Amino acid sequence: MLNKSPDLDSLFHALADPARRAMVARLTLGPAPVSELARPLPMSLPAVMQHLAVLESAGLVSSRKEGRVRTCAIRGEALSLAEHWINDRRREWERRLGRLGDYLKTTENKGGDDD
Amino acid sequence: MLNKSPDLDSLFHALADPARRAMVARLTLGPAPVSELARPLPMSLPAVMQHLAVLESAGLVSSRKEGRVRTCAIRGEALSLAEHWINDRRREWERRLGRLGDYLKTTENKGGDDD
Repeated sequence: MLNKSPDLDSLFHALADPARRAMVARLTLGPAPVSELARPLPMSLPAVMQHLAVLESAGLVSSRKEGRVRTCAIRGEALSLAEHWINDRRREWERRLGRLGDYLKTTENKGGDDD
Repeated sequence: MLNKSPDLDSLFHALADPARRAMVARLTLGPAPVSELARPLPMSLPAVMQHLAVLESAGLVSSRKEGRVRTCAIRGEALSLAEHWINDRRREWERRLGRLGDYLKTTENKGGDDD
């Protein structure tokens, strides 16, 4: 059975683009207006707004408009959700490596006894 | 400037699908033949092979065929690459929250002096 998680689907999809990762990386340093997010990116403002929409729909970024300025902020809890999924997988993998190492030691010792 | 990383692009793209995440989760427990990866997934074997191709091209999974059996294994270093990117961002974000907390404490104390 598939463990469906629209959150993880859209989170990882949002992170699969260098422009969006650059925006996330900037926003982890603090909130910023869209113009500042756009400045280092080699693309039009509408393209940046599209990337922002993907980040917002994934729940990674929130934004609000005051007057003519739209300010964006990271949503750390969404970042944590993606982080936890990967951390859990890595831990499982390390646990398995540990068991494998123990097993190999056991067989080495047995091999030693046989000599 | 964009920090291009085809690795991270394809890694996060590979993780943005529930079937591929299920395959990764299974493989963190140890290598498995494709038939075992496919068993819990509600899709055809060709569809599973397509997902496997995405995972392999992202470097997340390796596979080798012996006779008629293709056995797959997780490549932990690729998982770590994605994990490090997210961990680093979360750390930046927490550092910022820490600084913000310190700043708020300072202004609170100043507010107290004024009363």
